[in-house]
Amino acid sequence: MAKSKYEYVKKFERNDSLLPNTWLVIRVDGRGFHKFSDKHGFVKPNDQKALELMNKCAENVMNDFRDIVLAYGQSDEYSFVLKKECSLYDRRETKIVSTIVSLFTSNYVFNWNKYFPDKELLYPPSFDGRVVQYPDDNNLRDYLSWRQTDCHINNLYNTCFWALVHSGKTETEAENVLRGTVSSEKNELLYSQFNINYNKLPEMYRKGSVIIRQEVSNLKYHLYVISLGTLYTAHSRKD
Amino acid sequence: MAKSKYEYVKKFERNDSLLPNTWLVIRVDGRGFHKFSDKHGFVKPNDQKALELMNKCAENVMNDFRDIVLAYGQSDEYSFVLKKECSLYDRRETKIVSTIVSLFTSNYVFNWNKYFPDKELLYPPSFDGRVVQYPDDNNLRDYLSWRQTDCHINNLYNTCFWALVHSGKTETEAENVLRGTVSSEKNELLYSQFNINYNKLPEMYRKGSVIIRQEVSNLKYHLYVISLGTLYTAHSRKD
Amino acid sequence: MAKSKYEYVKKFERNDSLLPNTWLVIRVDGRGFHKFSDKHGFVKPNDQKALELMNKCAENVMNDFRDIVLAYGQSDEYSFVLKKECSLYDRRETKIVSTIVSLFTSNYVFNWNKYFPDKELLYPPSFDGRVVQYPDDNNLRDYLSWRQTDCHINNLYNTCFWALVHSGKTETEAENVLRGTVSSEKNELLYSQFNINYNKLPEMYRKGSVIIRQEVSNLKYHLYVISLGTLYTAHSRKD
Amino acid sequence: MAKSKYEYVKKFERNDSLLPNTWLVIRVDGRGFHKFSDKHGFVKPNDQKALELMNKCAENVMNDFRDIVLAYGQSDEYSFVLKKECSLYDRRETKIVSTIVSLFTSNYVFNWNKYFPDKELLYPPSFDGRVVQYPDDNNLRDYLSWRQTDCHINNLYNTCFWALVHSGKTETEAENVLRGTVSSEKNELLYSQFNINYNKLPEMYRKGSVIIRQEVSNLKYHLYVISLGTLYTAHSRKD
Repeated sequence: MAKSKYEYVKKFERNDSLLPNTWLVIRVDGRGFHKFSDKHGFVKPNDQKALELMNKCAENVMNDFRDIVLAYGQSDEYSFVLKKECSLYDRRETKIVSTIVSLFTSNYVFNWNKYFPDKELLYPPSFDGRVVQYPDDNNLRDYLSWRQTDCHINNLYNTCFWALVHSGKTETEAENVLRGTVSSEKNELLYSQFNINYNKLPEMYRKGSVIIRQEVSNLKYHLYVISLGTLYTAHSRKD
Repeated sequence: MAKSKYEYVKKFERNDSLLPNTWLVIRVDGRGFHKFSDKHGFVKPNDQKALELMNKCAENVMNDFRDIVLAYGQSDEYSFVLKKECSLYDRRETKIVSTIVSLFTSNYVFNWNKYFPDKELLYPPSFDGRVVQYPDDNNLRDYLSWRQTDCHINNLYNTCFWALVHSGKTETEAENVLRGTVSSEKNELLYSQFNINYNKLPEMYRKGSVIIRQEVSNLKYHLYVISLGTLYTAHSRKD
Repeated sequence: MAKSKYEYVKKFERNDSLLPNTWLVIRVDGRGFHKFSDKHGFVKPNDQKALELMNKCAENVMNDFRDIVLAYGQSDEYSFVLKKECSLYDRRETKIVSTIVSLFTSNYVFNWNKYFPDKELLYPPSFDGRVVQYPDDNNLRDYLSWRQTDCHINNLYNTCFWALVHSGKTETEAENVLRGTVSSEKNELLYSQFNINYNKLPEMYRKGSVIIRQEVSNLKYHLYVISLGTLYTAHSRKD
Repeated sequence: MAKSKYEYVKKFERNDSLLPNTWLVIRVDGRGFHKFSDKHGFVKPNDQKALELMNKCAENVMNDFRDIVLAYGQSDEYSFVLKKECSLYDRRETKIVSTIVSLFTSNYVFNWNKYFPDKELLYPPSFDGRVVQYPDDNNLRDYLSWRQTDCHINNLYNTCFWALVHSGKTETEAENVLRGTVSSEKNELLYSQFNINYNKLPEMYRKGSVIIRQEVSNLKYHLYVISLGTLYTAHSRKD
């Protein structure tokens, strides 16, 4: 069998190993989730069940990949942090990102019915993924702060926007009201017009969710899904 | 809001655009499918329904991404060929591979019940993905020949192996019988001992499946899922 | 000796092999040659000896690296074309580009006195380098056309500019005269004001230089340094 | 002028920016220097003048690139350390490595006569270069220790080898004597047979050379070329 005749084509595969001794962040992002959440009637601005489903998917990814030490999620995205000394798949970039995105997606469809027992999944959702390397702990902490800040900014805006829309304004009118407003004005608008104290809203909506792994022993660990105000500083695991 | 303070972390993202004017092949591979097929009682050596489910997933991926001109599948893997002039996501490698793997996976779980109405999906399956660039048509054709040769070699072996096992041999005994045999000996074994004419077995098992897109117009195209003996030579689409 | 203790640092080296079966172009570019040509009193707009020195360096690079099939030079740059099947240094990008740039530079300093016997080299000149991969012959031909077009545009401009300056205009005045003019106007200016027929100027100035290798046998080849109007189409070498 | 028609070829250039916030090490290595040192009659095992010429080249490279904080050289190689926050050429890999290798090479040829006034340079020498990224200070320190250990091992061996050869042994005989010996045996051999106390030999031969930059002010700095026993730990510059 002339197998060898064709095998040269393997040489066109690129070695895409990532730099050793850097934090690896894999961020999974919903593809077309604006439309997806519309079609499936997600509660606006935050759908508790949809966020819990995201957390469940992330939890299962962490159970499968022990090198993930922390995950942070908000809206339709989740970031997974692999420890610096991780040697998963020889740190090959596309292998790592494709496998994690695939497992996350699979869990999303697989677990849909547990979170939405009365809602049929109308079509298969999908996610994209990317990998970023961070050389030191400060860079990683700032990455997580960046995503959490993004969560805050978007959620404050969306809370105002949907309060206005639910009170009878059109989407265009709501946008016009909010254009150019700063945080304090949005807080004030929520309080004065809708009697909403933004800081009393659930932390999961305002701050996102964090999953941390606590190693109890080599064979055992706990995962904690937490909605919290301040992210812990990330540290390399001591060996 | 000190958003800008953290945004520098975006600079750590690598630009991973692939070379222009090359064929892009994305190969999706089942992760741990040996165990998965055992747990779900797939018929050996080939489960018709499982292969049809793979074909369905590939078809839906091709419906979503118009730049895919051809797909080739066998066993638990599928290769998607994007045309040379493809500018999908600016040809960013991880964006392309993660999205295609995710959509394939999502379809697998989503459509499971249609192909296995009496079989519960026990846990979420996953796939990995890789990207290979091929500069010219000959390289691409050889890539497809390589995967088809792989299909043939594995399927001939597996057909013998499972015939022996189904006839009462242990797996170890079957392996011993087959060790060192060449193709003609395996064909002879199937014919003389099990009255199986290998060349009369379904082409989908022996050769894999090909999906080609026939553009009818800018707005319309047909997808043909074909099990065929000889792969067509790939050509760049004329514009 | 605890050598092994430190050797892990080699793992941080990236495998930067280029894609097989693509044309490799290495372009070497003078660094700060505007100042360098001023300091060394190069004749403007073209210094015959300086161009001949560039050609000599390129010739010696081609003598050292047999995988280079063609080189094209103009002004303070030179492009080297390595054949598609080239396996020099396993096609490692930084190894290839650094070695070629180094050898080119070394030749420039080494041969300076032969071309400028009466002019002392005042300080060590340097060059940078880059690598570009071209999948097919058309891309490569267009690359060469691009550099030759660049040569033409710059040389026509510079010929006008220096004619004006040599006739007594300041550099600023010369720039003002030329701002917004098209090719035909520049040709007309040269002819009417300076009696220069641009198309009669030496081809090396107007079109650049090409070095091609003619293989006579496995052991012997000729290099031809040519100043020519139309570049030959590049073809892969038949084996 | 149909310039735009060809300019698409620029899109084939890859963006090869290195990861931010990592130490960058550029190592320059002599190409074929075994033959080069033979042809030019370098004193064995160490040629004081040849090492001083290498140091001079490194010094001039450091004068040109202020982002280099430290350089380490031994034999025919030199490593340049660029600080973590270096943004030279947007951290583009081939631009950085090609420019530094070119400038080093240029200095080597340019300064040859100052170090070897009575020895003609017979042909142009060349160097290759590579880039390695190190995420933290320990990795960088271990890199430097690795090169210094390499210097020690090679120099101890070469000192024995050339002592034997200079005493009348053939090169093959010398190799046979040294095969399998450990450091202590080599030290003993030097002392007992040749009355050489290895630890009293010049530090530059045994340990290599280090060049450090001491910033006196924004406008002024000192370079110190040092031959020393223990390398300083590298630290990021405070800003």
